[in-house]
Amino acid sequence: MYTLYHHPFCPHSRFIRLVLGEHGLDLRLVEERAWERREGFLVLNPAGTTPVLMADGFPPIPGAGIIAEYLDETHGLEAGERRLLPASMAERVEVRRLMAWFNEKFFEEASNPLVTERIYKRFMSEENGGGAPAADVIRAAKANVRYHLAYIGWLAQTRNFLAGDRLTYADLAAAAHLSAIDYLGDVPWSEDEAAKMWYARVKSRPSFRPLLSEWLAGVPASRTYVDLDF
Amino acid sequence: MYTLYHHPFCPHSRFIRLVLGEHGLDLRLVEERAWERREGFLVLNPAGTTPVLMADGFPPIPGAGIIAEYLDETHGLEAGERRLLPASMAERVEVRRLMAWFNEKFFEEASNPLVTERIYKRFMSEENGGGAPAADVIRAAKANVRYHLAYIGWLAQTRNFLAGDRLTYADLAAAAHLSAIDYLGDVPWSEDEAAKMWYARVKSRPSFRPLLSEWLAGVPASRTYVDLDF
Repeated sequence: MYTLYHHPFCPHSRFIRLVLGEHGLDLRLVEERAWERREGFLVLNPAGTTPVLMADGFPPIPGAGIIAEYLDETHGLEAGERRLLPASMAERVEVRRLMAWFNEKFFEEASNPLVTERIYKRFMSEENGGGAPAADVIRAAKANVRYHLAYIGWLAQTRNFLAGDRLTYADLAAAAHLSAIDYLGDVPWSEDEAAKMWYARVKSRPSFRPLLSEWLAGVPASRTYVDLDF
Repeated sequence: MYTLYHHPFCPHSRFIRLVLGEHGLDLRLVEERAWERREGFLVLNPAGTTPVLMADGFPPIPGAGIIAEYLDETHGLEAGERRLLPASMAERVEVRRLMAWFNEKFFEEASNPLVTERIYKRFMSEENGGGAPAADVIRAAKANVRYHLAYIGWLAQTRNFLAGDRLTYADLAAAAHLSAIDYLGDVPWSEDEAAKMWYARVKSRPSFRPLLSEWLAGVPASRTYVDLDF
């Protein structure tokens, strides 16, 4: 049994939930508002960020990339052909490259500013940086989403899944980040048909269901969010 | 034979050079000015960042973290007790946590702003963001160095090396980032004796020599940079 300190809109937490779901692993969720910098949480992860995975009898495992490596090392072999970080060296490089692309670059340029401005700030006190969303930050992030969407579309046209023939961490990372901002209606799906078709396939997987069924009071999900044939 | 696209002041490139040096692996260096966004380089790494490692007959390997995982998977076992990403699961989590701490958090908060403002900007055209260094950015980054140095000192007092008993990726990542800004005189060593002692030990390793012998014309190294008993 795993416990995950997460936030429902943290894209990195969503990624790990999808990974655990694909592995069919049981999970207990604990919601953490990382911006409050709770002392007990900082002991688990001095960097103060979600997600943190707790495995019985094991030290805390902080950070999406580190958790993904841990889960590959503990559950990867038994997954066989469905291993999310494939065994061949060249595939591992490409999957890790795209996993970092979404968990670092897309996060910094698009999903984090959008989720921070439009969701987290609602819950933050003034001293934690709360307040009205910054329109210029949102505008810049939305512009970045468009070039990332075109890159996803290009990959999806070239390959069956983002990193190659099979579903990998790359798809789950990309879909996790997109899902957080799709809730907010911030993905211009009509601009890229290939990206949209790829996302519809990933989103229809059972591992996605728990994410789609969680709604935030006062912030209705976009029209496309739950619809599998959006 | 490996080829590394790097920049002499890119902290991530320095980290990989130290890792290859510890493994005793031969290396050809190609200097890349990532901010110029050279087309041939973007083909190797669409993210446009250094370092990128080229191994004969293998696709490009972009990014410090991904290169570190690749080198562990190809050379880790043969290193035995000197493996830089140790075999036990708990140690792997801790080494990866600290490697990410320095390659992501320290980079963002300290080494990247200092190197960008004080080195890269000299070479950048105006349209690439060149110009005079921003004093407020430098001031904020230098303040961040102090709290990171205290964290390093705390780890170094608690353990023999940063992640445990032995030298690991954690030490090399930390030392690589510190070395780039130590050249500029931006590390207040006198504030933390334990951090200073740990750094002196890492810096005296043969893998460090090539870094210490490279000087940038017009930017003299700080008094402490080359001195092993600074």
